[in-house]
Amino acid sequence: MSDHKLSASITPKRSMEMLSQREVLLLKKTGEGSLYEIFRSCSLAILNVGSECDDAKILLAQYEDFDIEIKQEDRGLKLQLTNAPSSAFVDGQMIASTREMLFSCLRDLVFTQAKLQMNPLPLEQSDDITNYVFHLLRNANALKAGRLPNIVVCWGGHSIVREEYEYTKAVGHELGLRGLNICTGCGPGVMKGPMKGATISHAKQRIYNARYIGLTEPGIIAAEAPNPIVNELVIMPDIEKRLEAFVRLGHGILIFPGGAGTAEELLYILGILLHPDNKDIPYPLILTGPASSEKYFQQLHEFINTTLGFEAQQHYKIIIDNPEQVSKEMKVGMQAVEDYRKINSDAFHYNWAIKIDHDFQVPFEPTHENMASLRLYKDMPTHKLAANLRRAFSGIVAGNVKAQGVNAIEKHGPFEISGEPSIMKPLDKLLGAFVKQGRMKLPGTKYTPCYIVKTDTAS
Amino acid sequence: MSDHKLSASITPKRSMEMLSQREVLLLKKTGEGSLYEIFRSCSLAILNVGSECDDAKILLAQYEDFDIEIKQEDRGLKLQLTNAPSSAFVDGQMIASTREMLFSCLRDLVFTQAKLQMNPLPLEQSDDITNYVFHLLRNANALKAGRLPNIVVCWGGHSIVREEYEYTKAVGHELGLRGLNICTGCGPGVMKGPMKGATISHAKQRIYNARYIGLTEPGIIAAEAPNPIVNELVIMPDIEKRLEAFVRLGHGILIFPGGAGTAEELLYILGILLHPDNKDIPYPLILTGPASSEKYFQQLHEFINTTLGFEAQQHYKIIIDNPEQVSKEMKVGMQAVEDYRKINSDAFHYNWAIKIDHDFQVPFEPTHENMASLRLYKDMPTHKLAANLRRAFSGIVAGNVKAQGVNAIEKHGPFEISGEPSIMKPLDKLLGAFVKQGRMKLPGTKYTPCYIVKTDTAS
Amino acid sequence: MSDHKLSASITPKRSMEMLSQREVLLLKKTGEGSLYEIFRSCSLAILNVGSECDDAKILLAQYEDFDIEIKQEDRGLKLQLTNAPSSAFVDGQMIASTREMLFSCLRDLVFTQAKLQMNPLPLEQSDDITNYVFHLLRNANALKAGRLPNIVVCWGGHSIVREEYEYTKAVGHELGLRGLNICTGCGPGVMKGPMKGATISHAKQRIYNARYIGLTEPGIIAAEAPNPIVNELVIMPDIEKRLEAFVRLGHGILIFPGGAGTAEELLYILGILLHPDNKDIPYPLILTGPASSEKYFQQLHEFINTTLGFEAQQHYKIIIDNPEQVSKEMKVGMQAVEDYRKINSDAFHYNWAIKIDHDFQVPFEPTHENMASLRLYKDMPTHKLAANLRRAFSGIVAGNVKAQGVNAIEKHGPFEISGEPSIMKPLDKLLGAFVKQGRMKLPGTKYTPCYIVKTDTAS
Amino acid sequence: MSDHKLSASITPKRSMEMLSQREVLLLKKTGEGSLYEIFRSCSLAILNVGSECDDAKILLAQYEDFDIEIKQEDRGLKLQLTNAPSSAFVDGQMIASTREMLFSCLRDLVFTQAKLQMNPLPLEQSDDITNYVFHLLRNANALKAGRLPNIVVCWGGHSIVREEYEYTKAVGHELGLRGLNICTGCGPGVMKGPMKGATISHAKQRIYNARYIGLTEPGIIAAEAPNPIVNELVIMPDIEKRLEAFVRLGHGILIFPGGAGTAEELLYILGILLHPDNKDIPYPLILTGPASSEKYFQQLHEFINTTLGFEAQQHYKIIIDNPEQVSKEMKVGMQAVEDYRKINSDAFHYNWAIKIDHDFQVPFEPTHENMASLRLYKDMPTHKLAANLRRAFSGIVAGNVKAQGVNAIEKHGPFEISGEPSIMKPLDKLLGAFVKQGRMKLPGTKYTPCYIVKTDTAS
Repeated sequence: MSDHKLSASITPKRSMEMLSQREVLLLKKTGEGSLYEIFRSCSLAILNVGSECDDAKILLAQYEDFDIEIKQEDRGLKLQLTNAPSSAFVDGQMIASTREMLFSCLRDLVFTQAKLQMNPLPLEQSDDITNYVFHLLRNANALKAGRLPNIVVCWGGHSIVREEYEYTKAVGHELGLRGLNICTGCGPGVMKGPMKGATISHAKQRIYNARYIGLTEPGIIAAEAPNPIVNELVIMPDIEKRLEAFVRLGHGILIFPGGAGTAEELLYILGILLHPDNKDIPYPLILTGPASSEKYFQQLHEFINTTLGFEAQQHYKIIIDNPEQVSKEMKVGMQAVEDYRKINSDAFHYNWAIKIDHDFQVPFEPTHENMASLRLYKDMPTHKLAANLRRAFSGIVAGNVKAQGVNAIEKHGPFEISGEPSIMKPLDKLLGAFVKQGRMKLPGTKYTPCYIVKTDTAS
Repeated sequence: MSDHKLSASITPKRSMEMLSQREVLLLKKTGEGSLYEIFRSCSLAILNVGSECDDAKILLAQYEDFDIEIKQEDRGLKLQLTNAPSSAFVDGQMIASTREMLFSCLRDLVFTQAKLQMNPLPLEQSDDITNYVFHLLRNANALKAGRLPNIVVCWGGHSIVREEYEYTKAVGHELGLRGLNICTGCGPGVMKGPMKGATISHAKQRIYNARYIGLTEPGIIAAEAPNPIVNELVIMPDIEKRLEAFVRLGHGILIFPGGAGTAEELLYILGILLHPDNKDIPYPLILTGPASSEKYFQQLHEFINTTLGFEAQQHYKIIIDNPEQVSKEMKVGMQAVEDYRKINSDAFHYNWAIKIDHDFQVPFEPTHENMASLRLYKDMPTHKLAANLRRAFSGIVAGNVKAQGVNAIEKHGPFEISGEPSIMKPLDKLLGAFVKQGRMKLPGTKYTPCYIVKTDTAS
Repeated sequence: MSDHKLSASITPKRSMEMLSQREVLLLKKTGEGSLYEIFRSCSLAILNVGSECDDAKILLAQYEDFDIEIKQEDRGLKLQLTNAPSSAFVDGQMIASTREMLFSCLRDLVFTQAKLQMNPLPLEQSDDITNYVFHLLRNANALKAGRLPNIVVCWGGHSIVREEYEYTKAVGHELGLRGLNICTGCGPGVMKGPMKGATISHAKQRIYNARYIGLTEPGIIAAEAPNPIVNELVIMPDIEKRLEAFVRLGHGILIFPGGAGTAEELLYILGILLHPDNKDIPYPLILTGPASSEKYFQQLHEFINTTLGFEAQQHYKIIIDNPEQVSKEMKVGMQAVEDYRKINSDAFHYNWAIKIDHDFQVPFEPTHENMASLRLYKDMPTHKLAANLRRAFSGIVAGNVKAQGVNAIEKHGPFEISGEPSIMKPLDKLLGAFVKQGRMKLPGTKYTPCYIVKTDTAS
Repeated sequence: MSDHKLSASITPKRSMEMLSQREVLLLKKTGEGSLYEIFRSCSLAILNVGSECDDAKILLAQYEDFDIEIKQEDRGLKLQLTNAPSSAFVDGQMIASTREMLFSCLRDLVFTQAKLQMNPLPLEQSDDITNYVFHLLRNANALKAGRLPNIVVCWGGHSIVREEYEYTKAVGHELGLRGLNICTGCGPGVMKGPMKGATISHAKQRIYNARYIGLTEPGIIAAEAPNPIVNELVIMPDIEKRLEAFVRLGHGILIFPGGAGTAEELLYILGILLHPDNKDIPYPLILTGPASSEKYFQQLHEFINTTLGFEAQQHYKIIIDNPEQVSKEMKVGMQAVEDYRKINSDAFHYNWAIKIDHDFQVPFEPTHENMASLRLYKDMPTHKLAANLRRAFSGIVAGNVKAQGVNAIEKHGPFEISGEPSIMKPLDKLLGAFVKQGRMKLPGTKYTPCYIVKTDTAS
């Protein structure tokens, strides 16, 4: 065992996790429907605290002798770890948050898998999926009935420059001063900064039950290892359910600077807010960053204008370099959400009312074929076009950082995306700007695009 | 609305219960797989606090205009009650424990039903049932990992004389002084006395998280309305799963005086302990009562001897009129349970190790045909004979107090039970003694036997 | 060491009690201003749980080899007990409430003594005493800011018949159902019953921070050993400060049947309520008991009429055999108290506004001389006459049960009390009735009056 | 009212603070022994959150119309603020920590004053002072019995450069990862950084009861306004009692870079540790800073060597630029403290055993006369020389930042300090280095020395 690896026996600090014998079987290395491999790789990502590596393949290779096993003991479950990353430990003791996250991971994987095994005909209707996301969040104890709307979802890049990072901390500090909670994708960068800032201001406000919710999924967790401030980790089964969870669990969304993933998220939420059924539902959406990010947001704003139009721009507000104003506007937005739900008897803890089109719910497989056949034309309803643009960005994110996507690119070359010129040109320009600004990869690495934008002149 | 009825809107005090839209649909008055009727009748039983009526039919008739409806509100669920029994209220406010129980009932019915709907091929294997009982108890938050064995199951009559009731309080007081928790069938009589005694001694010992667990099932809850000290109510789907829950959740069993139901319980646990697989598993079992009950226990002891034999007698101890000794022996027994589970890495919170034969797990339908065809012969393995004797008593309990059984008796006359004379004669004698001692019905009512014991001379 | 005595080392369960080296010195057996003797005798009374003995002298004689010593350890204080009553232990472990009370006793004695040592010129002004009582209660953590008025003081005999005891439990049960807390003199009988009843109903109402306050003083604690339900024991320095604490800490008073001590308490509160300054201050005062006690209350009512007059009768209400009505009226009274204090910005946690005359605050030494020189004439202001009648009863209580008083009677014969005939005759009649009804001593013992009532014909 | 001032009514969040009428009188603007002025100025310092101003005079002048008044209400005390600094508020609501601190301030001032009024002959013996400090800390609830040694006192400058500040955060983060708590002088700079770092790591370790103790005194609070992470503020009556509180409450001391005040603190603790009575008492003492501070510590180390000698150097360890090692060594030191106290039955919560010479306990008045007459010669016992050197630095601190000292300097010119050359030369050199490094005043301001070092050639 090298000196950066440790073996240890881990018990949950709080005695919450209990599995039946049947569920324990699901986690054995061998056996039908085994969760072992996915549990092992998620655990490894969780244990990889504070590492700068966002490449799942490298991580898995470095710790190929890592093993994790579940043991039943008199007082409950125990995890037996072998050759785990030593960064998860302080003086030989596992950091408490990391320990908690391992058990959260176990809880979510078992729930998802057990559900699927018992219910072999899966989730076809839109309602089925929405109920399923609810059940998963409830099982993860992420739905807290009775609390007023106060969850701010923060989206943006996991790899940002220092100035942007400091800005996210400042915004988090202002949000925390106003008693707001933070929900992110649970990795580093924009996913960590607001939590760090809010930790300090929650301490100042003597808020002891503050929530730092991290929503992730098995495909992304290795690239965006949960930061240890997260005190509620939920692993959703795939990227679409994760996005739906953000939208229904959160009460407002902040978008910080990022790259393709951030554009995907913006297109996703705009596609939803543009749905005719949602036109009366208040949903605070703010794009913000430090002075240096002004140009970035201008580019995005212009891209939205060119592709989805003026109406889409009315659904968000851009605020540059003003954490206090961001926080005040978000607080005002929360009040609007509260009023609306009270009047409509809609639950504070889960946004049942908002319509998420089936297009946004079904997983998009980022294959070369699917990417090539995306329709990107202005004759579609705006929210449908937003859906397809979202998929295009989703595929690019996969090609950049997800194991499956990276492999596909290595094998078949870059994805081809095509559509009408009035969409493809702005798209190409935006992507080019992202590459130039170093927003596609970790700083210091050279980026080779995983896509080719083509203009479909025939249409 | 008469003056003994009240209408009210009820919210859960602690914000634990959240239902998905799908689950709320299950509780609508109309619709597929609706739980409405069962929820209504269980709720009525829960609201019938402190009533002396143990006849479900009378209760339902008295409150035929009672209605209960679920409403989704911003902060969670609300129950809308119309024409509810006023005994559940103090100055117009519902008693907190009653309120909690209504939501516990909701939780358990939804879990059971949702499970069944998703998993249409039910629970065939013994293991399936054991895992199912675990899942149900876990969902009810009744499994608390990490606590040492300290749950004492108290069985006995719901209708006992004053002296016996005072004795159960004294025993409960001694158990509570030693930090033990109480689990009963959650009704009055023996199901309430130990909880009342323990409430006082837990207060003296400054134990603030004491558990008063009530395990019931929809068929029995009306006859044994939960007493309001119960702070964990769990509604199991049927009598067999309820019995399995007692055995796997509890760490020791006390049997107080009772009637046919108590005999059923004693035969059930003896049948399990007599199973060859269980011979090394410690399970403290004590039969106890005041001086006046000595004869009652002698009769039972003799009946066990004649039918199941000397070995069966070794599994329990009879202690007359000595609450302190009962409590001390139970405490010693808990230590043996703790030691055994530590050595065998068996969970403290759920007795996975004990073998419960499939015979004891499948519901016994108390029809005239099933009762008539029970085999009661000494050539069977002892634990199989115990199983059938248990069923005989189970049928008699149904014929005495359960709606279905009472209806069958009204329609077809008494059940016939038959077997070899060396079993049937002691059985007849024991039942006769119960009738004579008034242990078949509430005091003050005349009892008409719902059974005929026949001797099968042919065998 | 006999088998009813145990030795043990006791640490506080909650780490609240810390003493400075100077304070520890106060408790050494030798040394200036030592508290050792008083701490030893109070501790012995506390340890004497559940004993039927109410005679301090017998208790002290029985445990003359009892010793208690304070030790400083790394984690705080420890008490070293030698030859303590075994009734305070369950299986060798001290009952948690008893353990707590020993540390409460330590806290109060040290506070009182340290205060007196530092402030050698004591409490001369009425305001001084009132502030001192406040400081003592605050130091005992008995003042809880922010809670609404809900403390019901229950007065009455420590030695009552079964039926009366059961009645006090029923009243306590009803009070607890309405969320009210109980404050008594902390001994058995009336001081225990309401707490026991409320313990059950507080459990039903899921009230986990219920208060069972016991106010005692060193001279009475041996005769009225704290019952173990008390979860806040406060030892006031003398009888008058204890009475003031009842009145200022409590929000309403219930008087159950009792003997001379109960009459003393009624006269005390009437004397205060009759003070002209207090005429607008709401103070619910209810006299109640089972049907059998009706005559007792008629006698008291008549005595009040004859001596203090009709106006005094307006300050209380007598309710016979109706626990629910008692509780409802007390609840209504609490609301009046709340309203009054809100309007007048008077603290909920301490009744600063009520005037307690200096006469009621200074200790009355029950010597033969003081008893003989009491003025009992109708030409006095009513509240002054009430004060002197109170003293007469106080002396009789001392002569009955307090060490000092009993010794004085043994030495000099009965006290002589004299006054004008229109007071002395009713007094003699009332005392005679108490003797006849066995309200002067524990049942089963013969009572020899410690007083002679004389009529002062000269006046 | 200008826009940077707010008026508000403040109630304590937790209902802890209750005052008697007598105590409320102490805080009235007029009246004997009034605390009003001192309460007003301390409150102003507390409200001055986040301000960069460390000059009490400027602060008082800026808010000369600020007023604070105590009101008694039904639920307890209320503070009425007029024209308070708006920096203490977020959207019109006072920051919770600031609110808490105002009530802590009230508590401590009342305790101190009430004590002094009742005990007019004050604290002459060394033991008296030690017991008094204990009583004050106990009253502030700062003594928590039962917890293992884990309080790290952090000393150093309130005005340090960015790199040093970041370093203190990194050290705090490592201390928090190991479960250690932080105690500082509660101002900015070194007093804030470790708390900020530990807040993040305590969150990671799920430590919810972490302690951020700030010990201050009325004369320094304006210059070192409490940072809002402090969750236990204690105001000691003077600088010497504050220093004693640090030593007896803390279990180890870290010294970061600072100026004259830091040198004073180092001399204080060395003077104590050099006392012959203390030679066996473990007391971890570490001097640490980033790489850039290496020279600073070399200068101090050399100064100690030249003046107090090699033995004094053995009492501390210097660690440069290694937060993890600092934290590990401190953790090891804590274990030694724990072991020592267990063996000697010394309380974990208060270091009774360590001898603090009377010289270190009595307030040193920094008058020109006292400064001039300090004896600084090597023929004194080392701990006595340390005491006088400490006083010299104390006077310089007063001349730099305390109102009284600054006034004296303005009036009479700089203090003169004299002694034998082998002490005065190193002293002059060290002070010169501090001036040169800008450690005497806030960065950006020009420093005029408040002292003249003279060599006493006669001696």
